[in-house]
Amino acid sequence: MTPEEFRRYGHAVVDWVADYWRSLPERPVTPAVAPGEVVARLPAGPPERGEPVEAVLADLDRIVAPALTHWQHPGFFGYFPANTSGPSVLGDLVCAGLGVQGMLWATSPACTELETVVLDWLADLLGLPATFRSTGRGGGVIQDSASSATLVATLAALNRASKGRWRTDGLDRAYTVYTSQHGHSSIEKAARIAGLGDGAMRAIAVDPVTQAMRPDALRDRLEADRAGGAVPALVVATIGTTSTTAVDPLRAIGEICREYGVWLHVDAAYAGAAAVCPELRGTHDGVEYADSYCFDPHKWLLTGFDCDAFWVADRAELIEALTVLPEYLRNAATESGSVIDYRDWQVPLGRRFRALKLWFVLRWYGVEGLRAHIRAGVALAAEFAGWVRADPRFEVVAPHPFSLVCFRLRDLDGADPQQGDERNEELLRRLNASGEQYLTHTRVNGRYVLRLAIGSPQTERHHVESTWRRIQQIAGELDAGAAG
Amino acid sequence: MTPEEFRRYGHAVVDWVADYWRSLPERPVTPAVAPGEVVARLPAGPPERGEPVEAVLADLDRIVAPALTHWQHPGFFGYFPANTSGPSVLGDLVCAGLGVQGMLWATSPACTELETVVLDWLADLLGLPATFRSTGRGGGVIQDSASSATLVATLAALNRASKGRWRTDGLDRAYTVYTSQHGHSSIEKAARIAGLGDGAMRAIAVDPVTQAMRPDALRDRLEADRAGGAVPALVVATIGTTSTTAVDPLRAIGEICREYGVWLHVDAAYAGAAAVCPELRGTHDGVEYADSYCFDPHKWLLTGFDCDAFWVADRAELIEALTVLPEYLRNAATESGSVIDYRDWQVPLGRRFRALKLWFVLRWYGVEGLRAHIRAGVALAAEFAGWVRADPRFEVVAPHPFSLVCFRLRDLDGADPQQGDERNEELLRRLNASGEQYLTHTRVNGRYVLRLAIGSPQTERHHVESTWRRIQQIAGELDAGAAG
Repeated sequence: MTPEEFRRYGHAVVDWVADYWRSLPERPVTPAVAPGEVVARLPAGPPERGEPVEAVLADLDRIVAPALTHWQHPGFFGYFPANTSGPSVLGDLVCAGLGVQGMLWATSPACTELETVVLDWLADLLGLPATFRSTGRGGGVIQDSASSATLVATLAALNRASKGRWRTDGLDRAYTVYTSQHGHSSIEKAARIAGLGDGAMRAIAVDPVTQAMRPDALRDRLEADRAGGAVPALVVATIGTTSTTAVDPLRAIGEICREYGVWLHVDAAYAGAAAVCPELRGTHDGVEYADSYCFDPHKWLLTGFDCDAFWVADRAELIEALTVLPEYLRNAATESGSVIDYRDWQVPLGRRFRALKLWFVLRWYGVEGLRAHIRAGVALAAEFAGWVRADPRFEVVAPHPFSLVCFRLRDLDGADPQQGDERNEELLRRLNASGEQYLTHTRVNGRYVLRLAIGSPQTERHHVESTWRRIQQIAGELDAGAAG
Repeated sequence: MTPEEFRRYGHAVVDWVADYWRSLPERPVTPAVAPGEVVARLPAGPPERGEPVEAVLADLDRIVAPALTHWQHPGFFGYFPANTSGPSVLGDLVCAGLGVQGMLWATSPACTELETVVLDWLADLLGLPATFRSTGRGGGVIQDSASSATLVATLAALNRASKGRWRTDGLDRAYTVYTSQHGHSSIEKAARIAGLGDGAMRAIAVDPVTQAMRPDALRDRLEADRAGGAVPALVVATIGTTSTTAVDPLRAIGEICREYGVWLHVDAAYAGAAAVCPELRGTHDGVEYADSYCFDPHKWLLTGFDCDAFWVADRAELIEALTVLPEYLRNAATESGSVIDYRDWQVPLGRRFRALKLWFVLRWYGVEGLRAHIRAGVALAAEFAGWVRADPRFEVVAPHPFSLVCFRLRDLDGADPQQGDERNEELLRRLNASGEQYLTHTRVNGRYVLRLAIGSPQTERHHVESTWRRIQQIAGELDAGAAG
């Protein structure tokens, strides 16, 4: 494809995306599609001869788009948001067009240096400790996801706990990893990948009201493990757990980690974005104890997946854990010691120029625009929680410091817990079947709970309001069914 | 940014990319930039208020583009190519615009099913064994890179070698990993990440002429390790090593792996693309022994980074190794067992709709177009190697079955090896300083060697020819210097 063909088709694809965004409110959030339907509509093999882009766009409309869950839909309230925005897509387009590889500083200097700068900007914007800046001993890097950030934190923690023997000799002792009962599944996965086995995971009890990790329970477990001969290597504290956005008490946990000499990784994948607002930074109290910290601009900061921002307080520890230098990657800049080679900060060797989309987003919205986006989400969630509380059939089951509200229908008098859970499952099923919005669920204190997660820049007050009206309506139908 | 603003700015950014591509031949391949120069030209923080896209594009021209290594340049012959193409960028643009998350089938069915289909297409296109198709027990998935493919293959191999104990108990014994002396650095990195330590790596001797793994040396090492109480878990055979594109003898290695019950992973990161041409498939003889196989469409198949295609012969083994299922990801489709959830095939949880760019590439070029691209690169490399051989000052130091040629200036009479290596280093330095082309180096049989890797669709015969003329000219200057 020549540059001029690309220009022509590029305009057409930009138009396709713009039209798609305009069409979102008219589309059902989730598709009515059975497993295998998309496969069945596609040919058995690629064409022998090339086809025009128009043919592909037609199939995109006919086969692909109707079988998508529309994560950018204003009624998408599932999981956590994974929002993108116009400037993010533009930055990604430049990234794809340049097609440079940032594995080494030398393989594209601007790709590395813009990333370092943008991560320093972000650290400032979130009010993170000075230790995380590249101008000190730390530094930031873009990972694909918080899962990968947790993995590399685990590896650096093992290297530290083993005094470097891990690198050469592998796992020489029984290392253990700690997080709350609501820590993300990626923590268990990282421990497994690192060769510790699921048995090395310690799910520390949470407070039944706040759903946050209990520091006393953490200390007890560390003591017991030490006494049993295990070597505690890593504690992962969460700011904004996946289930309820609970905030683990960082300061208390950090003090314990320091006392026991354990690496503290802070997983703020979703809620870290909130720290762009000074009034929401209380959730980060004690973050100066962290050895590493991550959050996902691709969740709640208007930047398309994949973009996890990961910082370490001491980059030398991370690099020591991950570096491997074959002959074909040797170069003068690396040997001078004056550059960052991000390949040593991550699992893969190659890397895209992902800093571009973050740079486009930060410049298009500015600090004010990003704060306005976060505040709008928090305010809508607070308003929704108020409506839930005002309806005696419902309860809000956990604090909602950010833009997620966990709620459920209260159990009917005399009903057992399982019946109560099934009623909530049915509520969620009917709600999602409407196609107007999409929510997901979790369990809190063992009970089935609905999650409404707000974050899309497309979501306005009326979308949340009509969702609440539909919830109330279905609740009425369920009551009528129970009475009838 | 509204859809209409996106439309307007999107056209501008498409034009920027088209203009960039047109400008490539006039740009120096590598930038004249010192460490810290880009950092110094950027402001200390993001703007308080948003800025227009024009301002960002102006800085892209002023600060970023002059500090890039232009991987898409027709004179880029370094490392391996990492080429993109117009249709790939368009597919990526759709991916960014849709902003869907393919972690589960349920979170966007078409994102999963198009990937499954396109990977089945690719398996056919490469003539891979039927076992790798999703219609059998196997299946394909897109990883970000061959590094990640090797890592997940390592994990599945450990789970098999431990009979599943690895998942729960972690590493219980001394497992070992085998690859040739020219196996990629990511194999060592994967073993380290998996907790085996660098000491678990076995670098098997290569044949000094072909640079390919010696099966007899592999067998000897397996025997010795078994006798020493180690458990051989994984052999990684390479089709197209990074240094010289050597082809390990798959069939002989596969028979040994079967005999010893060891997982065979085939790393065809660069050269797998060649198998789209039936006449180049001899390099894949014995691939039916592979438990897993990967190649990078983002290297030599016109698809932008990141896009590694990874297949397993038995998907159940991979899924068993990697699955973790928290409550908030439970859903009816997963529980039905009739869908693929790709989160269980990779390290991260989240995933983009990367199949789109592959789909755009396969349809735009068609089978014929892809074959023509590969054949053009192989022919140019063969022609270049012919020129090198015809000049008595030079030698081609390894076979060149694909589009990489490894060559060097022969040692001058009476010169010691170090002097000879330094002359070749100086040749490379002067060559790259011209800015007209970019080559990198490696070591073969301990000697410093230049690598010319062809792969860009922009590269035409005259670019290779003028590079060869410049090499000859510099060789003449070096001779004159040595004589003077």
